[in-house]
Amino acid sequence: MPVSLGELAIQSGCELIGDPDVEVGNVASLTNADAQSLTFLSNPALKEQLSSTKAAAVILRPADADDCPVAAILHDDPYACYARMAGVICPPPEYEPGIHASAVVDSRASVAPSAHLAPNVVVGADSTIGENVYIGPGTVIGSGCSIGDECRFIANVTLARAVRIGKRGIFHPGVVLGSDGFGNAMTPDGWIKVPQVGGVRIGDDVEIGANTTVDCGAIDDTVIEDGVRIDNQCMIAHNVHIGAHTALAAMVGIAGSATIGKRCLFAGKAGSVGHITICDDVVVGARSFASKDITEPGTYLASFPAEPAKDWTRRVARFRRIEALQDRVRNLEKK
Amino acid sequence: MPVSLGELAIQSGCELIGDPDVEVGNVASLTNADAQSLTFLSNPALKEQLSSTKAAAVILRPADADDCPVAAILHDDPYACYARMAGVICPPPEYEPGIHASAVVDSRASVAPSAHLAPNVVVGADSTIGENVYIGPGTVIGSGCSIGDECRFIANVTLARAVRIGKRGIFHPGVVLGSDGFGNAMTPDGWIKVPQVGGVRIGDDVEIGANTTVDCGAIDDTVIEDGVRIDNQCMIAHNVHIGAHTALAAMVGIAGSATIGKRCLFAGKAGSVGHITICDDVVVGARSFASKDITEPGTYLASFPAEPAKDWTRRVARFRRIEALQDRVRNLEKK
Amino acid sequence: MPVSLGELAIQSGCELIGDPDVEVGNVASLTNADAQSLTFLSNPALKEQLSSTKAAAVILRPADADDCPVAAILHDDPYACYARMAGVICPPPEYEPGIHASAVVDSRASVAPSAHLAPNVVVGADSTIGENVYIGPGTVIGSGCSIGDECRFIANVTLARAVRIGKRGIFHPGVVLGSDGFGNAMTPDGWIKVPQVGGVRIGDDVEIGANTTVDCGAIDDTVIEDGVRIDNQCMIAHNVHIGAHTALAAMVGIAGSATIGKRCLFAGKAGSVGHITICDDVVVGARSFASKDITEPGTYLASFPAEPAKDWTRRVARFRRIEALQDRVRNLEKK
Repeated sequence: MPVSLGELAIQSGCELIGDPDVEVGNVASLTNADAQSLTFLSNPALKEQLSSTKAAAVILRPADADDCPVAAILHDDPYACYARMAGVICPPPEYEPGIHASAVVDSRASVAPSAHLAPNVVVGADSTIGENVYIGPGTVIGSGCSIGDECRFIANVTLARAVRIGKRGIFHPGVVLGSDGFGNAMTPDGWIKVPQVGGVRIGDDVEIGANTTVDCGAIDDTVIEDGVRIDNQCMIAHNVHIGAHTALAAMVGIAGSATIGKRCLFAGKAGSVGHITICDDVVVGARSFASKDITEPGTYLASFPAEPAKDWTRRVARFRRIEALQDRVRNLEKK
Repeated sequence: MPVSLGELAIQSGCELIGDPDVEVGNVASLTNADAQSLTFLSNPALKEQLSSTKAAAVILRPADADDCPVAAILHDDPYACYARMAGVICPPPEYEPGIHASAVVDSRASVAPSAHLAPNVVVGADSTIGENVYIGPGTVIGSGCSIGDECRFIANVTLARAVRIGKRGIFHPGVVLGSDGFGNAMTPDGWIKVPQVGGVRIGDDVEIGANTTVDCGAIDDTVIEDGVRIDNQCMIAHNVHIGAHTALAAMVGIAGSATIGKRCLFAGKAGSVGHITICDDVVVGARSFASKDITEPGTYLASFPAEPAKDWTRRVARFRRIEALQDRVRNLEKK
Repeated sequence: MPVSLGELAIQSGCELIGDPDVEVGNVASLTNADAQSLTFLSNPALKEQLSSTKAAAVILRPADADDCPVAAILHDDPYACYARMAGVICPPPEYEPGIHASAVVDSRASVAPSAHLAPNVVVGADSTIGENVYIGPGTVIGSGCSIGDECRFIANVTLARAVRIGKRGIFHPGVVLGSDGFGNAMTPDGWIKVPQVGGVRIGDDVEIGANTTVDCGAIDDTVIEDGVRIDNQCMIAHNVHIGAHTALAAMVGIAGSATIGKRCLFAGKAGSVGHITICDDVVVGARSFASKDITEPGTYLASFPAEPAKDWTRRVARFRRIEALQDRVRNLEKK
């Protein structure tokens, strides 16, 4: 959607150095931008690309303005400013209100007139779909769900049952919400399933990536607070509670009944054991996992980067003799 | 479904201390229970919550009965007893027999009259669906599959082909069974696909969590025995064999042709390399993986819990000098 | 499909020792083969099974021919030869051209007459489907996609938008392509979504396993070159570039903007951090992850195999005292 630089600058309260009437219609990287493109310079390592950019305008820090060969939009956080402006230039697709003929809506469900239900959508009993919701093809909304206004389900999303979602949520393909938690009691005759009767509560402005799963609670609900961002293929077990604005990168696993604070960051493949509490503002590094309560904000790690196989193998062998080494040192100390 | 305490106690052969005619209609935690709730006390750490519970009845160990302010159901394993009773109070939803108008059933498929096929279900050629099976919306049953009585497929499950399942299985949304194993032969021109012609055989009383995948065998079948429980986002590769009553927590990966014994437990993100055999009654800890045959029951580990980043980083640096350290000790010993 | 041994040998340019008119109609393992079966001997550990095989013919190395009790097909790489011949005997199922009545194809989409669209397929605007493409039940092809000739989508695959695929690709159930990358900018008010406007470009002869996700690029495209093989439940983040003929085993995660070379191998649960470059012909071992550029071909590792819990726990405790140990050695050296 073409927008003038002047309008973008006014919307974001930025200073513009350049012609306010020039329109931009797409976003691009510094090197691939053309005369219709808006781009940005946030990472100092890319500064060398600035002088040759062909963009209509570059969002950058005031200190970089003098080196900008084209129109400049000044902001102390160019990436956040870019995010906002790109959202104006490239808004999500719009859909006509209505329910496709192939969609199946239970007679006890309620769908707002402004919602769009794509082909093969199924909505179960006692579920309500809010205003301007987009439900993409093949999505199944089970019974007892409540979907807030302006949520978007891209395609083939599944809500098993009893999922309540706030406003403006985005749910990517293959997401599963409200599936049964892993509750089993061992008996002499084998496992007995423990019925999972809780639901899932999700706040406003939550985005959940492709093929991520969020289980319903065993008895009480699983809870994801406002503004949480979850990447693809994460696993949120039953009765987990995730604090507002926490972000989980791909393949993170949070085990049952763990409580994660606000504004935490879990890097790729990180995670947490169950039944622990992690305070606000904790960062857990890639492939690292919290194994007990964390009460101090900060960064926590437990992963080894890959090394050439022969170095690594030798070190692992030495590691396996670490006790013997310690004994030898003790012997030396005695002498 | 409201049930009297007396009936619950009789069904489970438990002693009831309290009025047998009182009915319970839901389950709840000790702290959230109301006068219609059944709850339980299994974890001693929660004992302090007992005195203030408002439940209709609490399932607990005989030793805790004196401290129970309400009706008490006595059992040595309160959690298993709760699992059974909760299954009575909160049974899975029931569905009318029948095939939804939007379901597509191949003319060479066979569907029992008591089965329920929800909207947009597809059943392929030469597949048979047993009595009282529930097939939720969007589920695709490929060709050559056989589904035992009383299985439930919640929604958007996919059976690619040649999957044979016993009775009473539960398959959560996004589960994929019978997809091709990862069989590729390298040649000077690149990879050639190795056709995956085996199937999947799954026993009775198996439950498989959301977005878990079980590949078909390369030539012979992939096998999951009776009573196995698999959590979300696990990966069972081609020709794996999983023994009865083994449980895999979320994100476990079992590589091709591994044989896992009976009653094993794999914690979250644990796994096994391929082509090995793990005996019965083995526990593999969170994020740990078996790399060779295990012949002794017991617990096996290989993961480090996360630590504050500066501690961890320092230790990794030292670990990288572990060989030098060993050399220095050897030098000292020589002197 | 029954084929004569003579025809198989001619197609692959192999020497046949045995009757060229004998037909084989299935493939089997050495031990389960019957008089209609083709089998192979590649792994020397299985040589003892050769003498008792009941197969019609065995593909094996010339050196093993004398020990073969049945017809022998000689090839220096029996597994690759088996892959080719099995592809002839067990070709993928064929489908009649046509669009099922329940499929929904946008008026601005283009579908080749020879393509097969199964029940409940949805094809979005401005998407094109090539010749002889098979699109299995429940598959959603979003807008702006391009599918090359002879691609196969088994079932319930989702292409969100802007995915361009070459010829002969195979996409297993639950695969998600073109979902939004994980782009978020932190602000004092919480995260802002960074619109993900790039697409996904996939070459010829690519196979992607069940429930794997490939995100679209943030601005430029995510790229997967020709002949890449990806197993189940892998995660390819935005703007990753994967070189030709690279293979990723199950549960591999490649973080954003990583560039992976040609002919690389990532074992199960391996991965790479984002924004690094890995050269051609690199092997990353199971559960190991590349954390910085790799410029030398070879094998890289960083995982510990599981050990009995008490051994492991003791070693981890010693590891935590590794700095103290080093200090003690230093003290000894000073003396």
